[in-house]
Amino acid sequence: MTTSANPDRIYTAGLVVIGDEILSGRTHDKNIAQVASWLQVQGIRLAEVRVVPDVIEKIVAAVNALRVENDYLFTTGGIGPTHDDITVDAVAEALGVGVVIHPEARAILERYYTSKGIEVTEARLRMARVPEGAELIPNRMSGAPGIKFGNLHLMAGVPHITAGMLDALTGTLDGGMPLKNETIGCWTAESEVADILRETEQAHENCQIGSYPFFRDGKVGANFVIRSTDAEELASCVHTLCDALATAGHDFTPGGI
Amino acid sequence: MTTSANPDRIYTAGLVVIGDEILSGRTHDKNIAQVASWLQVQGIRLAEVRVVPDVIEKIVAAVNALRVENDYLFTTGGIGPTHDDITVDAVAEALGVGVVIHPEARAILERYYTSKGIEVTEARLRMARVPEGAELIPNRMSGAPGIKFGNLHLMAGVPHITAGMLDALTGTLDGGMPLKNETIGCWTAESEVADILRETEQAHENCQIGSYPFFRDGKVGANFVIRSTDAEELASCVHTLCDALATAGHDFTPGGI
Repeated sequence: MTTSANPDRIYTAGLVVIGDEILSGRTHDKNIAQVASWLQVQGIRLAEVRVVPDVIEKIVAAVNALRVENDYLFTTGGIGPTHDDITVDAVAEALGVGVVIHPEARAILERYYTSKGIEVTEARLRMARVPEGAELIPNRMSGAPGIKFGNLHLMAGVPHITAGMLDALTGTLDGGMPLKNETIGCWTAESEVADILRETEQAHENCQIGSYPFFRDGKVGANFVIRSTDAEELASCVHTLCDALATAGHDFTPGGI
Repeated sequence: MTTSANPDRIYTAGLVVIGDEILSGRTHDKNIAQVASWLQVQGIRLAEVRVVPDVIEKIVAAVNALRVENDYLFTTGGIGPTHDDITVDAVAEALGVGVVIHPEARAILERYYTSKGIEVTEARLRMARVPEGAELIPNRMSGAPGIKFGNLHLMAGVPHITAGMLDALTGTLDGGMPLKNETIGCWTAESEVADILRETEQAHENCQIGSYPFFRDGKVGANFVIRSTDAEELASCVHTLCDALATAGHDFTPGGI
């Protein structure tokens, strides 16, 4: 899936979600889950997300913090044509470079709008602005491309456009072994099996077990998600957990509930 | 709504969402939008969100960064009974205090489990652990309470339990004037009205206009959200925007599309 997977190295990414609309509660973010799931397949772990408002210095601070700590940085939001789209300016400031019109982006936008019989205005060409030295991320959903600058990837806020950009990036980033996971569901309160979970995790040092409780149809249950980069250790941990649950008299459902 | 609203002061909050399940893409977060909407009504602005994994030092860093920068800090996730629930330990470390069993939380849990004929185990009493000096946030949805320590509020990860805790906190926090908003929808590409939006915002200094494009039924549109703490200025800005849209020949829908 990746250009040069390195199983001995853990690759991480940070994500900065940019937009007042998320912080006001008006828009329910869908990009965190979308980017997270996509990164898993690339063998890259999402290490931290920051949601920041449409304020230059807040974006700069988040971008600089997360790009230093991680192999990759992704942003969503703020690359459209209106006055509140300031991601390009903020990232250029964070990188200490200028903002230029990318000739290929300009050509893409001109072709796109001309083909639709729409006038190419200054506002529309705003979407061709990039930090100086950046490349483009193709976007098959609409004219405007995403922006790649080294390990930084600036993507759209509208989830299906973001999806198109992720698709264009698939397989182009170095990653490690993807984190595999198995889920075991159980119609029992997680507090009843807390000891089993802790002991099972301790006995399998390359596995993590997460416990995710739920209430459904008036009943309490939990899904236990076992994660590991090693398929054999994952299988062994799942086996140990199922044995322990069965011994303690808990019904469980492989695959989760 | 609040105990002592102060219209001249902007109150802000930070939110730390804790959990590997969000960063893996397995669980779609619902708490950001829920907490954001609730804060709006309290007259408190959500200034930043950080999503961090179940790792003590990552939680400590996020909690310390956001509690210093904001009037309030909220966390969701990691206060359950299992080994991966480490929020209380991390927050105690961030605050430099110990972890103790809260007698009232213990009594609540004992009453709750006894009433259901369930044994009170050590794992279940884990949910009575709090940073030393903390108070409880009642939780009418399940036995386990949330935790309040000064301006820090530790809440559940399961959204409907978080909702119960927010409900218990309603009206108890100092806030400023709630940010009011109006939405105007338009079946036009936002790039066509970028100039109108920018000029209208510039002419109304206490208003912000956000532009949120969408694609629906094969057509392009956008909602413009005008926000202000001042009802008169908000109305005036909406009026100016509608006039400008009408003059330029754009159909628009008050209330949004």
